[in-house]
Amino acid sequence: MSELRSRLTQLRERVEQALGEWLPERDDDAGRLFEATRYSALGGGKRVRPALCLLASEALGADPARALPAACALEMIHVYSLVHDDLPAMDDDDLRRGRPTCHKAYSEWLAILVGDGLQTRAFETLAEGYRDDPALGLDLVRLLAAAAGNLGMVGGQVRDMAAMGRDLDEAALEAVHREKTGALLRAAVLLGARVGGAQEGDAAFAALDRYARALGLAFQVADDILDCTASTAALGKTAGKDAEQGKLTYVALLGLDGARAKAKALEADALDALSELGPAAEPLRQLASYVVDREA
Amino acid sequence: MSELRSRLTQLRERVEQALGEWLPERDDDAGRLFEATRYSALGGGKRVRPALCLLASEALGADPARALPAACALEMIHVYSLVHDDLPAMDDDDLRRGRPTCHKAYSEWLAILVGDGLQTRAFETLAEGYRDDPALGLDLVRLLAAAAGNLGMVGGQVRDMAAMGRDLDEAALEAVHREKTGALLRAAVLLGARVGGAQEGDAAFAALDRYARALGLAFQVADDILDCTASTAALGKTAGKDAEQGKLTYVALLGLDGARAKAKALEADALDALSELGPAAEPLRQLASYVVDREA
Repeated sequence: MSELRSRLTQLRERVEQALGEWLPERDDDAGRLFEATRYSALGGGKRVRPALCLLASEALGADPARALPAACALEMIHVYSLVHDDLPAMDDDDLRRGRPTCHKAYSEWLAILVGDGLQTRAFETLAEGYRDDPALGLDLVRLLAAAAGNLGMVGGQVRDMAAMGRDLDEAALEAVHREKTGALLRAAVLLGARVGGAQEGDAAFAALDRYARALGLAFQVADDILDCTASTAALGKTAGKDAEQGKLTYVALLGLDGARAKAKALEADALDALSELGPAAEPLRQLASYVVDREA
Repeated sequence: MSELRSRLTQLRERVEQALGEWLPERDDDAGRLFEATRYSALGGGKRVRPALCLLASEALGADPARALPAACALEMIHVYSLVHDDLPAMDDDDLRRGRPTCHKAYSEWLAILVGDGLQTRAFETLAEGYRDDPALGLDLVRLLAAAAGNLGMVGGQVRDMAAMGRDLDEAALEAVHREKTGALLRAAVLLGARVGGAQEGDAAFAALDRYARALGLAFQVADDILDCTASTAALGKTAGKDAEQGKLTYVALLGLDGARAKAKALEADALDALSELGPAAEPLRQLASYVVDREA
C-alpha cells in the first residue's frame, strides 16, 4: 500500500502542476475570477478522479502523460460541483479541504461564476488537449458530459436534495449515488480507458466499466463511514454533517458493520472485474483497497 | 424586413423543436430538473444566437439543418447564463421572457442546477450532434468554450459586476460587453461559419468574424437603448433595471442620440464586413439592420 501511496502522491503532483497551467492567473478587472478559480481548484484535495483516469490509461499501456488533460478536465468538473454544492442555497457549507469555501472566501456571486467557468474550462481542456486526435477528443467530451449532466452528477444532486428527510430503501439510495458521485468516478475510469485506446464495446472497456461502477459505490459507502467516524480536522470538511442534515447514509441504513461489509463486497467485485487485465492494472487493484480502507 | 421576419420565425420554430428534442422530459425523482430546464429553455426568447448560427452556415452554402445542433448548443449556453444571472446573488431578477424567472418558479437550488445541467448539455449536444465528423465537432466545442468561459461570457459577467457603480470610459464599457454578451454572439456566427466549411484563417471566416464583432456590440447598444425606451411588457423583463442598479449603459455614456448613432455605425461596419460574400449572406445583412432597429 505504501507503493500505491507514493504513486498517488506522484500523480497528484503532476495533476496539480497541469491544473495550475490550465487555470492561469490573470491581472485585470476579471482577475478575482481567476484567483478564486485557482483558490478552489488548487487548494488540496485527494485528486482521486485524475488518479483513476491516469491509472486506467496506464492499465491499457498508455503513457499517463497522454491522459493528463482528461484527468484535469475531470477534476475541474469535480471542483465546480463542490463549489456549487457548498453554496448557501445548496448544502450551505463553510469549510472545504480545510479552508473556507469559495463563497465564504470570496462571495456568493463569484462562487457561482467560478463553478460555471470551471465547467466550461473542463470541456475546453479536452478540446485543446486532444486537438491532434479529434475522434478521441470528441469521445471524451461525450463521455464526460454524459457523466456530469442531468442523467449523471447534476441529476443525482437533484435526487439527493429531493430525498432529504424522506425514507429511502437501499435501491433508491444507490440510485442517488450512482448518479451523484458514481457517474463522475466511473467517467474518470472510462476517459482513461478511452485514452488508453479502448472503445465502447471492447472487453477491456467493459471490464474497466464494471470496476468503475463498483469502485464508485464503494467510495460513497466509505465516505458515509468516514462522515460518522472521522474528525472534521482529518476530513478537511465538516464531519457528521450528513447525519445532522437528515441525509440517508449507508451507515444509517445498514449500520456501521453492515456498511463496512458492503464496502468490502464492492472492493471484491472491483478486483474481480480486473481479473482479465495484466500487471499494468495493479495500481487500480490497490486503489480499490485504498478507497475502502482510507481514513480521510 | 418582413421577409427576414418570416425567415426568423421559421428558424425559431425549427430551433425550438430541436431544443425540445435535445431537452426531453423525464418522469422520476429528478423529473423537476428536466421540467425546470424545459421551462427555462423553451419559454420563448428571440433565438438570436441560433438564428445567427444557422444563417452564417447558410451564407457559406451549408444546409441549415447541419448547423442545428450547434444552434441549440449556443442557445443552451445563453439560457444557462440567463438562469444564473437572474439568481438573487447575481442580478436578482423576478421576470424573464414575460414569466417568473427559474428560481422564482422553482427554487434557488434547482435554478443553480438547471444552469449547470444546461451548460453540460450544450457540450454534449455538440459531441452527439457531430459524432460523424469529430474534427468539426471538436472545433465547435473549442470555439463555444472559448466564448462561454473565463475569457468570454463568464469573465465579462465578472467585469460587469466589478464595474457596478464605478466610472467607466467607453473603452472599458466595450471591454465588458465584448466578453459578457459579444463573445457568445460572435461564437454563434463562428460556429455557423465552421459548420459551413470555413476554417480559422480563411478569408470567409475572418469576414464573418468581423461581422459578428460589430453585430455583437450593436446588439448591446440597442439593448441599452431599449432598456430606457421600451416598456417592461414589450421587453418581457424589467425595464429600466440597468439604470436603477447604477450600471453604466451606452445611453448613460453617449446620450440617447449618441447611442443611436453608434448603433448605426456598427451596423454599417457589419454590412461592410460582408461585402465579399454573395447573395446567400443577404439574411445576415438584413439581421444587422433588424438588431439595431428592433423594438423589443
